[in-house]
Amino acid sequence: MNLATFTAGNEQLWGVTVPGGVLALSPEFPQWKTLRNVIEAGAVETLLERAAGRAATHDDGSFVWNIPIPDPEKIVCVGVNFPDRNAEYRDGQEAPPNMSLFPRFPRSFTGHQTPLIRPPESQQLDYEGEMAIVIGKGGRRIPEPEALSHITALSLCNEGTIRDWVRHAKFNVTQGKNWDSSGAIGPWLVPYVDPAQIVDIGLTTRVNGNLRQQDRTGRMLFPVARQIAYISTFTTLVPGDIIITGTPTGAGARFDPPIWLKPGDVIEVEAEGIGLLRNTVADEVV
Amino acid sequence: MNLATFTAGNEQLWGVTVPGGVLALSPEFPQWKTLRNVIEAGAVETLLERAAGRAATHDDGSFVWNIPIPDPEKIVCVGVNFPDRNAEYRDGQEAPPNMSLFPRFPRSFTGHQTPLIRPPESQQLDYEGEMAIVIGKGGRRIPEPEALSHITALSLCNEGTIRDWVRHAKFNVTQGKNWDSSGAIGPWLVPYVDPAQIVDIGLTTRVNGNLRQQDRTGRMLFPVARQIAYISTFTTLVPGDIIITGTPTGAGARFDPPIWLKPGDVIEVEAEGIGLLRNTVADEVV
Repeated sequence: MNLATFTAGNEQLWGVTVPGGVLALSPEFPQWKTLRNVIEAGAVETLLERAAGRAATHDDGSFVWNIPIPDPEKIVCVGVNFPDRNAEYRDGQEAPPNMSLFPRFPRSFTGHQTPLIRPPESQQLDYEGEMAIVIGKGGRRIPEPEALSHITALSLCNEGTIRDWVRHAKFNVTQGKNWDSSGAIGPWLVPYVDPAQIVDIGLTTRVNGNLRQQDRTGRMLFPVARQIAYISTFTTLVPGDIIITGTPTGAGARFDPPIWLKPGDVIEVEAEGIGLLRNTVADEVV
Repeated sequence: MNLATFTAGNEQLWGVTVPGGVLALSPEFPQWKTLRNVIEAGAVETLLERAAGRAATHDDGSFVWNIPIPDPEKIVCVGVNFPDRNAEYRDGQEAPPNMSLFPRFPRSFTGHQTPLIRPPESQQLDYEGEMAIVIGKGGRRIPEPEALSHITALSLCNEGTIRDWVRHAKFNVTQGKNWDSSGAIGPWLVPYVDPAQIVDIGLTTRVNGNLRQQDRTGRMLFPVARQIAYISTFTTLVPGDIIITGTPTGAGARFDPPIWLKPGDVIEVEAEGIGLLRNTVADEVV
C-alpha cells in the first residue's frame, strides 16, 4: 500500500492505494489537512494500519492524481548527478566538487496521468526522470551515516524543464525549472523501510515507448545520503520536504538536433519498487 | 501605520505598528493565522481601520520582530540588477538580456533587530541591502503596465549571503543564499498605495555606520514592474509572494580584500518611506 493525494469531484483528498483504486482516509483524520501533516505527525504507519483489508472508496478512473504532497516547505532538486552528465553541457568545465542544487515550487509539478503543460512562450519542453525522496524526520547537519533514516517515503519525478529558459540569465536555472505544471511527481508515496529500496535501483525514462534514459541510483555522483547531509548543512530539513535526486543522461536536449516533447507524447518514468509515473503533454490554453 | 509580525512570550502574533510599540490584532481575527492570510483576504485596509487611534498592546522592547510573512508560497530574489553589478563579477561576460532569479526559503531570513547567524562552516557572511515587494493580487502573465497594481506592501531585505557557498557547484547560488537566518526581512510591511513609493527611492546600506551601498531604485536594470511581468510569465504569483528586487554595488565581497561581516557588526538597510532594517551578527552555537 502506498500513500496518495487525489481530487474527486472538486475535493482534494488523501489516502492509500488499494487494488482497483484508492481508499480516501482524509475524512477520517480531519486533523491532518495534507500528507505533509500526516508525515509531521509521524502517522504513516497509522494510515497503513487503518487501511488494512479495506476496499477502494474511489475506483480507478473516478479520480485525478495530484502531487502527493501539495504543500511541502521546500522542494530541492539535485543537478548534474549521474556519470557523463557534466560532459553533456560541453562547456569544458571540470565536474564540480559539490552538487548543484535548485529549488522548484510545488506548482511547477502536476500529478500522475495528467498532462505536462507546454507554454506558448517555448517549444523546448524536456523530460528528466528522477527518484524523489521525502523527509520524515527533520534535522540540521544530519550526519551522512544516519541520513537515510530521515527518509519516510519515495516517489518518482519527471523534472520537466523549459530548456531555453534555463539559460535566460547570468546565473541560475530558476525560470526554466519553474513553469507551472511543467513537471510531475507521483504517482504516490512508497513508504521507506529499507536502504535497499534506494541505494541501487534501476531508473528508466521512456517517451512513446522508446527508452531515453536508463541508469541505476548506485551510480549517482552524490548519493542520497550525501545529499541529505549536504543540504542540511545550510538549511534545516523538515518533515515533508522533498529532494529530487538527479537525472541520468539522455534528456531530449542532449540529442543532436534536440528532441523536444510535443502534445500527444507519453512520458513514463519508472523505478524498481517505486512504480511508474506516466504523463502526456498538452499545449497551454491561454 | 505598518503591518508587523512579532513574538511575545512564546506566541507569534501579528498586528500594526503604533507609537511606542505594536498593537496585536491577531487575537481579534482568529480566521487569519498569518499576514499572508490577511493579504489573501484583501484585508490590509480592514486592519488599519481597526487599529485607528488605539494604543500599543506591546511596548517597544517587550517583543521580538519576526519576518513579516512567515509562510509565503515563494520568495523570489532578483540578482545583478543595478548598474555596474555585472562588472563586479569580473568574468568578462556581457550583461544578460534577462534578470537572474533565485528562490530563498523563509527560514533563511530572520526579523529586524535580531542577529544574522554566521555558521561555523564559513567566515564569508556578506550583506546585500534591497527593497522587497509583496504581492497582493495574484496572476499569471501580468502585463507590465498593470504590474504595480498587484503589489500590496513594501519591506526591506538584507539578502545576507554565505559568499563561498554561492559558487560551490556548477550552476545556481542556492546553497550560498539559503543558510538558516543568514538574511533579514522587515521591520514591517508598508502598505503600498502609490507608485512614487517605489519607482525612484533612495536605498542605502551601512555597516557600523559606514556607508557601503547607495543607489536609487530608479536605476534598476529591470524595474519592479518588469520583474512582476517576467516572473509571472512562468509561475503564477499568489497573494503574499515576496520579490526581493536586487542590490546596488558595494557588498563586502567586492572590496579587495573582501570585508566579511563578523560578530558585533551592525548592518542597517534603509529606504525612503519604508524604514530602517537593523541587524547584528552572531556566531552560530552548534
